[in-house]
Amino acid sequence: MNNSFGNIFRLTTFGESHGKAIGGIIDGCPSGIKIDFEYISNEMRRRKPGQSKIVTQRKEDDMVEFLSGIFDGKTTGTPIGFIIKNKDPKSKDYDHLKDSFRPSHADFVYDKKYGNRDHRGGGRSSARETACRVVAGAIAKQVLSKVDIYAYTSSIGKVSLDEAYSVNNKEDIEKTITRCPDLKISAKMISEIKKARKNGDTLGGIIKCIIKNVPVGLGEPIFNKLHSELGRAMLSINAVKGFEYGSGFKGTKMNGSEHNDLIQKDETTLTNHSGGIQGGISNGMDIYFNVAFKPVATIMQDQASIDTSGKESVIKGKGRHDPCVVPRAVPIVEAMAAMVILDYYLINKTKKI
Amino acid sequence: MNNSFGNIFRLTTFGESHGKAIGGIIDGCPSGIKIDFEYISNEMRRRKPGQSKIVTQRKEDDMVEFLSGIFDGKTTGTPIGFIIKNKDPKSKDYDHLKDSFRPSHADFVYDKKYGNRDHRGGGRSSARETACRVVAGAIAKQVLSKVDIYAYTSSIGKVSLDEAYSVNNKEDIEKTITRCPDLKISAKMISEIKKARKNGDTLGGIIKCIIKNVPVGLGEPIFNKLHSELGRAMLSINAVKGFEYGSGFKGTKMNGSEHNDLIQKDETTLTNHSGGIQGGISNGMDIYFNVAFKPVATIMQDQASIDTSGKESVIKGKGRHDPCVVPRAVPIVEAMAAMVILDYYLINKTKKI
Amino acid sequence: MNNSFGNIFRLTTFGESHGKAIGGIIDGCPSGIKIDFEYISNEMRRRKPGQSKIVTQRKEDDMVEFLSGIFDGKTTGTPIGFIIKNKDPKSKDYDHLKDSFRPSHADFVYDKKYGNRDHRGGGRSSARETACRVVAGAIAKQVLSKVDIYAYTSSIGKVSLDEAYSVNNKEDIEKTITRCPDLKISAKMISEIKKARKNGDTLGGIIKCIIKNVPVGLGEPIFNKLHSELGRAMLSINAVKGFEYGSGFKGTKMNGSEHNDLIQKDETTLTNHSGGIQGGISNGMDIYFNVAFKPVATIMQDQASIDTSGKESVIKGKGRHDPCVVPRAVPIVEAMAAMVILDYYLINKTKKI
Amino acid sequence: MNNSFGNIFRLTTFGESHGKAIGGIIDGCPSGIKIDFEYISNEMRRRKPGQSKIVTQRKEDDMVEFLSGIFDGKTTGTPIGFIIKNKDPKSKDYDHLKDSFRPSHADFVYDKKYGNRDHRGGGRSSARETACRVVAGAIAKQVLSKVDIYAYTSSIGKVSLDEAYSVNNKEDIEKTITRCPDLKISAKMISEIKKARKNGDTLGGIIKCIIKNVPVGLGEPIFNKLHSELGRAMLSINAVKGFEYGSGFKGTKMNGSEHNDLIQKDETTLTNHSGGIQGGISNGMDIYFNVAFKPVATIMQDQASIDTSGKESVIKGKGRHDPCVVPRAVPIVEAMAAMVILDYYLINKTKKI
Repeated sequence: MNNSFGNIFRLTTFGESHGKAIGGIIDGCPSGIKIDFEYISNEMRRRKPGQSKIVTQRKEDDMVEFLSGIFDGKTTGTPIGFIIKNKDPKSKDYDHLKDSFRPSHADFVYDKKYGNRDHRGGGRSSARETACRVVAGAIAKQVLSKVDIYAYTSSIGKVSLDEAYSVNNKEDIEKTITRCPDLKISAKMISEIKKARKNGDTLGGIIKCIIKNVPVGLGEPIFNKLHSELGRAMLSINAVKGFEYGSGFKGTKMNGSEHNDLIQKDETTLTNHSGGIQGGISNGMDIYFNVAFKPVATIMQDQASIDTSGKESVIKGKGRHDPCVVPRAVPIVEAMAAMVILDYYLINKTKKI
Repeated sequence: MNNSFGNIFRLTTFGESHGKAIGGIIDGCPSGIKIDFEYISNEMRRRKPGQSKIVTQRKEDDMVEFLSGIFDGKTTGTPIGFIIKNKDPKSKDYDHLKDSFRPSHADFVYDKKYGNRDHRGGGRSSARETACRVVAGAIAKQVLSKVDIYAYTSSIGKVSLDEAYSVNNKEDIEKTITRCPDLKISAKMISEIKKARKNGDTLGGIIKCIIKNVPVGLGEPIFNKLHSELGRAMLSINAVKGFEYGSGFKGTKMNGSEHNDLIQKDETTLTNHSGGIQGGISNGMDIYFNVAFKPVATIMQDQASIDTSGKESVIKGKGRHDPCVVPRAVPIVEAMAAMVILDYYLINKTKKI
Repeated sequence: MNNSFGNIFRLTTFGESHGKAIGGIIDGCPSGIKIDFEYISNEMRRRKPGQSKIVTQRKEDDMVEFLSGIFDGKTTGTPIGFIIKNKDPKSKDYDHLKDSFRPSHADFVYDKKYGNRDHRGGGRSSARETACRVVAGAIAKQVLSKVDIYAYTSSIGKVSLDEAYSVNNKEDIEKTITRCPDLKISAKMISEIKKARKNGDTLGGIIKCIIKNVPVGLGEPIFNKLHSELGRAMLSINAVKGFEYGSGFKGTKMNGSEHNDLIQKDETTLTNHSGGIQGGISNGMDIYFNVAFKPVATIMQDQASIDTSGKESVIKGKGRHDPCVVPRAVPIVEAMAAMVILDYYLINKTKKI
Repeated sequence: MNNSFGNIFRLTTFGESHGKAIGGIIDGCPSGIKIDFEYISNEMRRRKPGQSKIVTQRKEDDMVEFLSGIFDGKTTGTPIGFIIKNKDPKSKDYDHLKDSFRPSHADFVYDKKYGNRDHRGGGRSSARETACRVVAGAIAKQVLSKVDIYAYTSSIGKVSLDEAYSVNNKEDIEKTITRCPDLKISAKMISEIKKARKNGDTLGGIIKCIIKNVPVGLGEPIFNKLHSELGRAMLSINAVKGFEYGSGFKGTKMNGSEHNDLIQKDETTLTNHSGGIQGGISNGMDIYFNVAFKPVATIMQDQASIDTSGKESVIKGKGRHDPCVVPRAVPIVEAMAAMVILDYYLINKTKKI
């Protein structure tokens, strides 16, 4: 169950960063959906390494090869199998890690849990796995043709957008390599990332996601509230440390009388501290949430650690890595959001006869 | 699937706040566990209404009646069925809500989703359902006899514990009715809650949870990371708006070189920004996380709304309600944490032959 | 997962035959369905002990108490919790079994699997659990108001209906206590059952189930074919040893040219060897299948066995038991069938947008 | 959920018979298992087309390419992704079926359910999908190194093994192309198959499966009894119409006093009518069951049918097809059995602390 996500629309993935290929199976996709392959490729480009000067320079062309489930350009309702070949692995780059545990990576815990591991590039715990999520998300978005899902970078390290800032035009996001729609702030972010990289260091940040035009009624009480599933989805992305929706952590400091969203005659609410979800169910207002990413654990500095025999060792900082994953994580956040919304849309169809 | 939580150790609940009873079924509890019923009752007392002057004065004795799965004082491995009768419903208190939608409640969305609803006291969306979670959590804690799980109030409204504050003695928590282990801060919180109640208003807050002695290896890549499941569990509690673990949202502002937890010869880490979880798997260090609760939506003030026919209406503030649910939510957070840890402990047993 | 059945429409049960109560939770029932409680009671009467002279004379009134999920006589879409109290347990009748394993019962395997067991009346493995299935089935049938599901006894021991016999009038079934709609055959069956009882022995038999008016399209390839799930459902009933649908085992002796069901202009098929299911999906024709029940393991004769310490022992035949469960199993077969059909009907709604 | 099988050890498959490739993902395989790839290839050869003169002469070399989850020859505990390319599709062979529904195939129901279909060779409903099951089964068998699972042909059409016949030497099975271990009976079966083929007709048959050395305790009450899951697994194989275990349908004609399996001092039973499973849980005796296969629906004769526009049509019998699938289905039955046993073995590890 662990490499699968979703109930009705369900993605199962496989693959290590340095094996032959990664890939997945999308089960439960409704039939008869026309697939725009160029759109999928574009979503892949938004995530892939080497896309700009502020991300890792690893080269992966991330070509998706679909093997089933689409016939005459349309989904057939059968499972969509796909693979993405690993083109530029450079496994040798990782030989120095074979016997050592990198700090704040999954090396140590995988070794303890499974009794062995594929040490090349993090193996299964590599963020390369998220490429498969972008494929499934790109298909989910096409099924959800009336729903608008977009995310953007709202902070990198200590540089952040003004809190009151609101993006109503998602086209702005792709105008900068940071995916922060305010160009001035974006320039500061780029300079911070460059500084971090120069120091062999890394940065974290926050991504905000907005979902418009979700119909009323998505979300399943009690344990599968819409925001619980969105939270789980986001927390399953590599490096994520937190999730908040609507008023979030700041909402804890408000009074109930300020926080309540009064319902108006047209069934919209006057304010939207609820973040489009009440009692775990969408109310038709914009859904929005924040996702916190820690700084990348792989730094270009020497770090003290231990090796698999328990002896102290030093991990050398080398290889090609991202000084900050936030810009590349924007399409991943969107993809996970799209999968959740579609899955819950399909589940909701079963509530009435 | 929606009223069930967990994979192997699985709780399924039923019941509306104003029906005959609420209850649940705990499936997958290991056999041969001696059950301390007094311990369960005590956990129930920590959650129940009327426990102190700062919570709702509704009276529910919350007596749990076990119907199966325990024989001669021990679990048998078969499902544990239980009910909790509703003693003091006062359904009439809710007649004024029959045709209106309360702001920031689930009334509107339930009505749209299901085409009808039990309007008495929120029906299924009432936090009364969480009593069942406390039952299951109290059993999970007894199975996990070596793991130590405790939570406490770290902020209410704008009053919060010093960030550096750390609770290493869980016995302090129950010394005050707020469950904030710093008595001075607790006194301020009480005064804030009283002030809010006097104004017919409500407050939110933050609960911190700490889990000690979790073995290395719990958590399932990729989509069922230990923190994803903890996040989902917490976000399924009524009124929760956010979840962060380890360094959380603040971690986004740190550099990688500060944030990385260096591994020491004894397999502990020098720092613990990871919050005891790396790559989604427990590493043996303390797990800790924060849960954000919004202010209670039911306030003792008139509020503009609409009724079920779409006409504007005014919701009167009346009934017996909590000015702040945070103190009562502490055992709920612990219960959900215990269920997740036990479930993942059991799943982990399947990884090796 | 083990005490739950179904995906969307899901029943979870609890309870031992000699505990305080048995019961269950029905999750995923569509909202707005008017419930006829008298109909449910009648279904319970068809299953309950003491209903005729050829079944066990244990007295259980099998009164179902609904605790949630139904409001103003209609389902609300929230979980339906219910309990059935155990009225006439006579646990003492089972004291002689405390330390011994009954042949062909679950005593031995429960003891080995769980390390302990509730020995009273079979505990969880008692067929008393099936009362909960009849409750859920009676609700499923009401949701499926256009589908017609009925079962009947087609053989008991060596007495069986002519193979060509077909029941097109389900009202005949309840005219005899065997639920075999041919009165002459039924009389022979009664005499066989009486003879077996007199000898302290027991009989098995076969139940045939027919489902009419199932829409085309229910059933999920590949692993959740409609007949796979029906088979699993039937094989989960106590004492069932086999399942076949359509042409079944006899179909293995036919040629393809005889067996193929030619499709006619009105989309019906000329013959129905397929049993209403092709490629795992309903084709609109009548679904029909057979379920084989072994003779009851509890006989009124002394039997050699071993006790929990591994020593040889003799099991005395005493207590109140069914000489043949087949007549009482008819409503259980129908209930399981109804749950499967409703569940798959709801799943099918998710296949297209 | 529909293209996945298993709970802990879980196979998900994709692929149409005439697409680029079929494949699957095996999740939950324990780590550290040495994989014998030659063994897997051999299992594939037992299933593949063209293996003998009595099966279809289609050529598929059925080479499995593993893409992940195995490192240095051992399983790592991460998902095992694999693909099998389609080498010899001859899609044109199926052009005549584009607009027509073949009798007793899934064409009609797929079209109705999904609104479209991949008509080439049955698309997803083709038995080609079972190749993926054989891969997963071959791995499951290697994990279950102490359990012995084998199946054989016990009847084809009207030619069947003597009922009392028992195979205690699984090596005999592969000595004939029918996989019926009695050479004389096998010769008769071959002659029947040749006769059917000559007539453009097809035959069905029965496969018996035996599982030795299963530990006591596998199987989950109530709804996931070991035999329920075995039944579901077998009924999910193309062309299967029935399943019976232990005494099966014949057991319905025995008295309880004959049928009961007396427990002996060494914890074995004197007889084994239970088929190694009591109350849904393995008791350590041999598990055995029968699986009924209908005659193949594709015959080399003209058949009346209708086309997608509802008009009457004639389906021509052409292409390369099996006159009888039973010999090739033997390894599929074994594979499904191995997956169930391993899955339940892993689940059982969670029952005690």
